[in-house]
Amino acid sequence: MLDNLNNPPIIDSVRALQWTGNALRVLDQRKLPGSVEYQDFHTAAGVAEAIKSMRVRGAPAIGIAAAYGIVLAAQAHHVENPGEWQELILQDFQVLAASRPTAVNLFWALDKMRVAIATGGNHPDSLLSVAQSIHEDDIAANRRMGELGAVLLKGASGVLTHCNTGSLATGGYGTALGVIRSAYLLGTQKIYACETRPWLQGARLTVWELDQDRIPATLIADSAAAWLMKSGAVQWVIVGADRITANGDAANKIGTYSHAVNARHHGVKFMVVAPTSTIDWNTATGEHINIEERDSKELLSDYFHHADSVIDAWNPVFDVTPANLIDAIVTEQGIVLNPTTEKMMALKDISISP
Amino acid sequence: MLDNLNNPPIIDSVRALQWTGNALRVLDQRKLPGSVEYQDFHTAAGVAEAIKSMRVRGAPAIGIAAAYGIVLAAQAHHVENPGEWQELILQDFQVLAASRPTAVNLFWALDKMRVAIATGGNHPDSLLSVAQSIHEDDIAANRRMGELGAVLLKGASGVLTHCNTGSLATGGYGTALGVIRSAYLLGTQKIYACETRPWLQGARLTVWELDQDRIPATLIADSAAAWLMKSGAVQWVIVGADRITANGDAANKIGTYSHAVNARHHGVKFMVVAPTSTIDWNTATGEHINIEERDSKELLSDYFHHADSVIDAWNPVFDVTPANLIDAIVTEQGIVLNPTTEKMMALKDISISP
Repeated sequence: MLDNLNNPPIIDSVRALQWTGNALRVLDQRKLPGSVEYQDFHTAAGVAEAIKSMRVRGAPAIGIAAAYGIVLAAQAHHVENPGEWQELILQDFQVLAASRPTAVNLFWALDKMRVAIATGGNHPDSLLSVAQSIHEDDIAANRRMGELGAVLLKGASGVLTHCNTGSLATGGYGTALGVIRSAYLLGTQKIYACETRPWLQGARLTVWELDQDRIPATLIADSAAAWLMKSGAVQWVIVGADRITANGDAANKIGTYSHAVNARHHGVKFMVVAPTSTIDWNTATGEHINIEERDSKELLSDYFHHADSVIDAWNPVFDVTPANLIDAIVTEQGIVLNPTTEKMMALKDISISP
Repeated sequence: MLDNLNNPPIIDSVRALQWTGNALRVLDQRKLPGSVEYQDFHTAAGVAEAIKSMRVRGAPAIGIAAAYGIVLAAQAHHVENPGEWQELILQDFQVLAASRPTAVNLFWALDKMRVAIATGGNHPDSLLSVAQSIHEDDIAANRRMGELGAVLLKGASGVLTHCNTGSLATGGYGTALGVIRSAYLLGTQKIYACETRPWLQGARLTVWELDQDRIPATLIADSAAAWLMKSGAVQWVIVGADRITANGDAANKIGTYSHAVNARHHGVKFMVVAPTSTIDWNTATGEHINIEERDSKELLSDYFHHADSVIDAWNPVFDVTPANLIDAIVTEQGIVLNPTTEKMMALKDISISP
């Protein structure tokens, strides 16, 4: 283990988003693991489309991509019309904001870019460094969360995760998967990933990026998680979040809530890992979160689309895990154990101060 | 509702197994719902292959198919060698017993045929009526369980089931799905079926046979079951069993155990429906059941079969739900509430008496 620390293996080799100098280079996540394809986007509309079409996914990655989208728009408008680029770019903010309306980090990143434009004078040059800071800060936050979360694990032998929260979903390193990377370096050997129906982010993305980094992992059906916990093979479930409300409730990929209930039943600990930019301070509890439902065709085979079928499907994208089933929320600003509104407020004070 | 009872709709139109006069006609379940194909099997070896290849599946259906397999073997051997057919058929018993070694009903049905041969004189003619009795008795048992289970539901508005336990898995009508058919006639309107990864028996088979019978149903991802329970939409989870041990523990398709844990957490009731032929009186508790694990390729995409992949999969077929998470075991001999070894023994006394 000491050898590992002195000469650490590469455990974070994948980048979903890269700035090329004049474009945002995007790894097309829809085609993984079968095909590794990058595509360059030169406009804000193109970046919005990359988000809408799920080439880019993961709440932190969406925020970063949107920030680069604003850079591309500012540069183009400034060339066309140097006197009015700050007005012209307002429509690009709208287009990017509409690309994934449920992603809190998207609005957080767009707000940062809005402030940068308002305070940065009349030339868009400084915007690139703001976008790059958002990107780099996200990686740094993930590494910090990785350290904090790994300490909390105290040498757990096995962990379970859901969906994809790794380098592909963030600027790099990952949130929940970042904790797992750090824990792996400290000796956590058994990593289980749920396939995550219906989009299979676990089966397609999580195990792909772990394979890239030579971190051994075991895929399971979502429905096998409880039986795995019963076996004693895992001591922690570690997940990300799409949104955390002011009381510590966490909205995340459908299936997360079931894992939380099962974790509590089996004495397995449950950790949510997310940067403070994921926290929606304006929403009191998870009951106020509107859960997106996707097309029934993601579950129902073509056969059932015949005209007189009496079969449909219910396909919620997210569920909400209540704070009382969460043992720890790990952010870049610190850990909140057994979250409550009061404890979360202390975190708010830290994360808003410079 | 009274109209329904006086003039009931057809709610049991599918037959997976039919005797043609000289063959067992099998609905190939591997091809559903895209294609409805029947195939005739004329030999015991053919029937064994139909079971092995998953054309026939479901513990009760496997037992029935094996009984017909013995009829086919007896007829053929009697034509070839009337004096020695009772010795020649021993190898057919072996071939059929090996077709799905974990199915308790398979051995139960083969034992019935063995007794019939031993007590039936030197001509195999009576064997067909024994096999047909096993088949008809199974349908009658399912209808009886349907009645018993539906009464227990007391007009529940919504129910959830897992895997396929319907006409396709049995002689007809179904075990858990039989209860749901009966409950539907009594007014239970919301029927939810889990897709049941990785084989998708729910998404391919359960909703197909409900669609055939014009019983409306809603498919969900396995991982959405907890969130569905949280919504209050279902009051019961109703499942079948591959094996029930003497204390009331129930082995069933992977994912069942997770539903049971979640049901208890949400105050949803949990019902196991299975004929007494599913009960393994010789095994004290579920801890002694050996859980079959299937090929990792059912979960892992081809990409991860490259030589230096560090990714594997864990693919248990069944899990075991402990008796203390089961509110009711419904058999054709009666209902066991909150099962214990003592209560199960009372059921044993009933089911062994004539």
